[in-house]
Amino acid sequence: MSHAKVDANPFLAALDGKTRARPPIWLMRQAGRYLPEYREIRARAPTFLDFCYNPGLAVEATLQPIRRFGFDAAILFSDILVIPDALGQDVSFEAGEGPRLRPLQTQADIEALRPELNVGRLNPVFETIERLRTKLPEDVALIGFCGAPWTVATYMIAGRGTPDQAPARRFAYLQPDLFQRLIDCLVDVSSDYLVRQFQAGVQAVQIFDSWSGVLPVAEFERWCLDPVHAMISRVRSRVPEARIIAFPRGAGTYLPRFTAGAGTERMGLSALGLDTSVDPDWAATALPEKLPLQGNLDPIALLAGGPRLDEAIDRILAAFDGRPHIFNLGHGILPETPIAHVEQLMQRVRRGRQ
Amino acid sequence: MSHAKVDANPFLAALDGKTRARPPIWLMRQAGRYLPEYREIRARAPTFLDFCYNPGLAVEATLQPIRRFGFDAAILFSDILVIPDALGQDVSFEAGEGPRLRPLQTQADIEALRPELNVGRLNPVFETIERLRTKLPEDVALIGFCGAPWTVATYMIAGRGTPDQAPARRFAYLQPDLFQRLIDCLVDVSSDYLVRQFQAGVQAVQIFDSWSGVLPVAEFERWCLDPVHAMISRVRSRVPEARIIAFPRGAGTYLPRFTAGAGTERMGLSALGLDTSVDPDWAATALPEKLPLQGNLDPIALLAGGPRLDEAIDRILAAFDGRPHIFNLGHGILPETPIAHVEQLMQRVRRGRQ
Repeated sequence: MSHAKVDANPFLAALDGKTRARPPIWLMRQAGRYLPEYREIRARAPTFLDFCYNPGLAVEATLQPIRRFGFDAAILFSDILVIPDALGQDVSFEAGEGPRLRPLQTQADIEALRPELNVGRLNPVFETIERLRTKLPEDVALIGFCGAPWTVATYMIAGRGTPDQAPARRFAYLQPDLFQRLIDCLVDVSSDYLVRQFQAGVQAVQIFDSWSGVLPVAEFERWCLDPVHAMISRVRSRVPEARIIAFPRGAGTYLPRFTAGAGTERMGLSALGLDTSVDPDWAATALPEKLPLQGNLDPIALLAGGPRLDEAIDRILAAFDGRPHIFNLGHGILPETPIAHVEQLMQRVRRGRQ
Repeated sequence: MSHAKVDANPFLAALDGKTRARPPIWLMRQAGRYLPEYREIRARAPTFLDFCYNPGLAVEATLQPIRRFGFDAAILFSDILVIPDALGQDVSFEAGEGPRLRPLQTQADIEALRPELNVGRLNPVFETIERLRTKLPEDVALIGFCGAPWTVATYMIAGRGTPDQAPARRFAYLQPDLFQRLIDCLVDVSSDYLVRQFQAGVQAVQIFDSWSGVLPVAEFERWCLDPVHAMISRVRSRVPEARIIAFPRGAGTYLPRFTAGAGTERMGLSALGLDTSVDPDWAATALPEKLPLQGNLDPIALLAGGPRLDEAIDRILAAFDGRPHIFNLGHGILPETPIAHVEQLMQRVRRGRQ
């Protein structure tokens, strides 16, 4: 992308290290259940995966929050569990209950997974991306994504979300070599998946490691840090200018080692997503000076609204003053969030620091 | 306590800043469901609170893990929710489902709480402590405890444990003045409760803030840091030599501000409990040099056992080498943990660094 185009796109400019008084903004899970227009179209597909694999519906869901709020980036409407689905594991979503997978329990279960990306299964995702690029204005970026290998593996082992993903943590202690094979497989297919998303037209990707905060440091290095960095290298070897945001949720005190060397020479991650529990003042001094940071408004503050929401927004704007920053939540927007509170947020961030 | 007595008690010596090749050890929730002898006596009381308020049973439950494993400290068998119970809120425990409280929802609910500690209700706890002190050998310390105001308040508002204690977080944004009254009430009664535990004979206390990791930094300061520090000051004003361990679980990047000034002049906390997700190498440089640290073995590593458990133990022993350290888990022991794995842990820690 030419410099002229990047300058017209505040989100991409921030990823490239530009600092502005009014940061670009998008929200994790900005396309989804808190929007009445999403709930209306959701009923048009029988299952959630059918919805994700329907380019017409996925394009519409992706665009809805852009039309309503004017975010600076659109994120592909999809789910991190399309990867286990493409690997041949049974995946479904129960209404109000979250994902259900046939849990991987034995070596045979893991060996039965396809060793490579089932591109045919995922073709609708790439078609969704191609269509989106023709529909988005030049100043709105398109973000692709996938789950990090550890987080995806925790669902593949447990078969569902659990309070602290204990089944995969236990599996990794008891059968580390077998678990390593699963992680290596996920590094391969997830890297390939991101490359294909770039080839289809996304301008940046985010790697969601929602469960990296439950591990001790040695396991964090083995199952989160090393696989995500391996993915970044793989993707860059084929898409040298790839912009990659990592979001290792709960990684708190591990972030200095996770970001070592980032933000300087286009090495490592392009930006770091911060969850709600990262102290912005600490991040400003403990993390690499030039690394763009994304985050980290409390989704409950957005749910609550009122004067406390304004205060929370202002504190984040002030804390990241002077460094490249992308405004976002510290976790996904909650389905019960009132539309008016998102409008309040947009007005406040657009106003910038006072 | 005289110096001679402290020197004979490795746990108290570590709290006072002494460094040893073999750290003292105890485990959070060491008295409880993973022990067959606990499950046997639990059946002798109709409800969990009846069990906690029965000195005969509570003494026996406290002593069981000391007899079996020889831990360096015994922790009073009780629960953090005796405080809401003593304030007049309905509290019960459903088997396998955790606590249930009649949720506080209105100003009238909060004003209906007793404004001071119901000592009569808690007399069995103090009697339990008095009996324990006559039964424990000199080299085993007795630890009292309470919940931190924020964590206790999250249960009082939600009426139960939830995945991220969203009800109290929302309440605090929407009605901060009313929530502050609840927190102030809990600071008062919890400080008084700890003072009375010291008067009855405990030699140290731990303040459990299990839910401090769900808050952004400004809310962490208001609802966790300030109340816990206020409690420490209150307790010290009446028990000047009180040894106080704080365990702000999930506080990760907030720990430098939480521990500022600690560990030097007997100001602030006596020791800091680290959860599983705190990087020990980071803690060694980012936290005050003389502050004793407690933790932080992954409870899932203990559940899994085997050679990985030995490696995890050795890494923690090495990481805290040269500073006062109390070996513990990073969270409570899991009910499914095999006895043999706790024996493996004790042997490895008693062996010390090789």
